[in-house]
Amino acid sequence: MNRLEQFKEWLQQEQIDAAFINSSENVFYLSKFLTDPHERLVGVFVFPEAEPFVVAPGMEVRQVKDAGWPYEVIGYSDHEDPWDFVAKAMEERNVQAKKVSFEKEVVTYARSEAFLNLFDAPEIVNAEDRLNDMRVCKSPEEIEIMRRAAKMADYGVEIGVAALKEGISEMEVLATIEYELKKQGVREMSFATMVLFGEKGGDPHGNPGDRKLKAGDLVLFDLGVVLDGYTSDITRTVAFKSISDKQREIYETVLKAELAALEASKPGNRVGDLDSVARDIITDAGYGENFPHRIGHGLGINVHEFPSMSHTNDGILREGMTYTIEPGIYIPEIGGVRIEDDVLITKDGCETLTSYPKELQIIE
Amino acid sequence: MNRLEQFKEWLQQEQIDAAFINSSENVFYLSKFLTDPHERLVGVFVFPEAEPFVVAPGMEVRQVKDAGWPYEVIGYSDHEDPWDFVAKAMEERNVQAKKVSFEKEVVTYARSEAFLNLFDAPEIVNAEDRLNDMRVCKSPEEIEIMRRAAKMADYGVEIGVAALKEGISEMEVLATIEYELKKQGVREMSFATMVLFGEKGGDPHGNPGDRKLKAGDLVLFDLGVVLDGYTSDITRTVAFKSISDKQREIYETVLKAELAALEASKPGNRVGDLDSVARDIITDAGYGENFPHRIGHGLGINVHEFPSMSHTNDGILREGMTYTIEPGIYIPEIGGVRIEDDVLITKDGCETLTSYPKELQIIE
Repeated sequence: MNRLEQFKEWLQQEQIDAAFINSSENVFYLSKFLTDPHERLVGVFVFPEAEPFVVAPGMEVRQVKDAGWPYEVIGYSDHEDPWDFVAKAMEERNVQAKKVSFEKEVVTYARSEAFLNLFDAPEIVNAEDRLNDMRVCKSPEEIEIMRRAAKMADYGVEIGVAALKEGISEMEVLATIEYELKKQGVREMSFATMVLFGEKGGDPHGNPGDRKLKAGDLVLFDLGVVLDGYTSDITRTVAFKSISDKQREIYETVLKAELAALEASKPGNRVGDLDSVARDIITDAGYGENFPHRIGHGLGINVHEFPSMSHTNDGILREGMTYTIEPGIYIPEIGGVRIEDDVLITKDGCETLTSYPKELQIIE
Repeated sequence: MNRLEQFKEWLQQEQIDAAFINSSENVFYLSKFLTDPHERLVGVFVFPEAEPFVVAPGMEVRQVKDAGWPYEVIGYSDHEDPWDFVAKAMEERNVQAKKVSFEKEVVTYARSEAFLNLFDAPEIVNAEDRLNDMRVCKSPEEIEIMRRAAKMADYGVEIGVAALKEGISEMEVLATIEYELKKQGVREMSFATMVLFGEKGGDPHGNPGDRKLKAGDLVLFDLGVVLDGYTSDITRTVAFKSISDKQREIYETVLKAELAALEASKPGNRVGDLDSVARDIITDAGYGENFPHRIGHGLGINVHEFPSMSHTNDGILREGMTYTIEPGIYIPEIGGVRIEDDVLITKDGCETLTSYPKELQIIE
C-alpha cells in the first residue's frame, strides 16, 4: 500500500473527515513533490473517501505533476487567496467535517485558522501522530538515498581534513568543503556547516569565522547534505599537529561513549537508554557538566526529526529507524570534541551510514 | 525609543496583557539574539508593564546575554518542557491575561496551544500587525548592513559571470560563486542559489544541475547572502557567446519593465502600482502570460518579508522601505530572463542597493 493509502486508512480508522498536510517534508513524503515554497501555501488535502488534491503556486503546478502526483493539482497566483480554491475543491467533493487533522507542530496558527474556518468548530487530531510514525522506519529506497547522503557527508569531512594547514581560517576550510560537495552535485547542506578550531569548539553552538588554525588545536567538523530530499549529519574531531593529555582524554571519553551508544542500538532496546549509557561514561569520567545536549535526533527528510533521542524517550528501537548518535564534551578555552554518526537500526543491531574513521587522528 | 519599548507601548495601547514572540527573525529584531533553534523553543515574552524575559535552550543562554539582552534569560534542557518555565516566570510576574498576542503567521498551532493554555480563553491579537510595520522601514544601521549584503550579492554575480565557459555545468558555476563568497566570510546564502542555463531558465522554479553551458544560452543567476542577520537577493541574466533576436527582445522588455518599476519607486506611490507598471510593459510586448509571479517582495531580516509587492497591495511606499523588483519572462525551450534589484525608498525616490550592471552583456 502506498503512503497516501496508508494515511487514508488512518483517516478512516480515526473517523477523520479531512486532513491538511502543509510541511514541505510531509508534502514530499505523501506526494513526492519536493519544494521550498517560502511563505506561499502548498498543501496536500486528503479525505477518507474523496479524491485528494494538492494546492500549490501556479508556477509549480507542472512540477507537482512531474513528481508523479496523479490527482488534481490546483494552482493559484500571488494575488489570489489559495483558501478560496481549497473551499471550492472541498465543496465539489462534498466534504463536511466534524473531525479534522493537520500537523499541529508545524502548521501556523493563521493557516490552522484558515483551514478550521472551512468547518463548524471541528475536533482536531494531530496529523503528526500518524505521519511521524509512518516516517520513522525507512523503506529500502529511503535507506539507499540516506546511504548516499551519508557517504557525501563522509567526503565532506575528508575534504575538510585534507584542507587543514597552519594559518588557514575556519571559513576557508568550510568554503573548500562546500565547494567540493557542490561540484559533486550537492545543492543544499542539511544545516549551516560547522568548522571550529581550538577554543571555538568549546562552545557547542559556536560559529565559524576567521579564527586561524594553529598547532595543538582540536578541529571540529559538523556537516551534512540534502540529497533527493533526505539528509545526513556527521561530526568528527581531529587534532592538528599535536594533542595534550587532557585533549586526548576528552577524545577517548567521547569515543567510548559513542561506541557504547552504538552498541546499545538494537531493535527492542529503549530509545532513551542510548543517551543514558553514553552519558554515564562521560559523567563517570568527570565531564557530565560538559555534555549539555541529548545524544542525538531522528534523521530522514528532516535533519532533526522524530524521535528525539533524549534519555526520557520510552520508545523502542525498531528495524529501519535512522537517527544520529553524537555525544560531545565542551570545555571553554580548551575546545570541544564531538563524534557523530548516522545510525540505521538493522534486524539484529545497527549499521552506521557514516563511515569516516573515528580513531584519534593527529593531522601533520 | 528602542524596539522593545516601542513594542511594549503597542501592548499598552492595545491593552494586550502578554505577548509571545517566537520567529527567529522577530526574536532577533527585539533581542538582537540571532539563532536557528531548529525545533527547540526560543521565545521573547513581553508585557505592558512587567519585565520581559527570554526562554532559550540552556546551551544558548550565554549567547542571548552576549547579544545584549539585559533582562532575564531562562534556559532549559532537551528533556525539560520549556513551557513549565514560561508558566513559572509568568506567575512570578503576576501576569493574568484576557488579551494576548503572538505571531499568527509563524507560530505553530502546537505552540499557540501551549501559550494559550497559560490563560483562560483570551482574545488573540496578531503580533505581526505591529512587528511587520515596525520592521518595514529600516533604520540607518539596518540599511548599512543591507548595503553590505547587496554588495556581496553583486560580487556573487561577478564571480558567476567570470566563471562562465563552454562546457561548464550549472552546479560548477554555483559552487564557484558560493566558494568565493564564503571566503569573504559569508556563512549563509539567503536561499538556494540559482544558476540556470538555456531552456533551464525557462522554468521560473527550475533547479541547477549538470546542464552544460553552450553558445547561445541565456544564463540566469539568482542569489543572495545573509549578513549580520539581513538578506540580499539579486538576479541577473547574461547571454553566452551569442544572442538571438527573440532573446534580445525578451531581455530588453524585462529591463524596460524593471526600470519602470524603479522609476515608480517613490514615497507616496501605491505599492501595487509597481507590479502594474512593469506588467503592462511586459503584457504590451506580448509576454503577459510569461510573467507568472508578482514584481517582488519585502526584504530585510527575511528574504521574503512584508510587504508582498503584488498589484493588489494598496499600501503606500515610505522612506526606508526595502524590497525587491524582479520582473521576468520565461519561455519554455528558449529560456528565461529575470532582472532583480534590492530597492531602498529614499526621501524623494529610490536607491538600488544592488548595482551589478544591467545592460545586456554577451559573454565571450
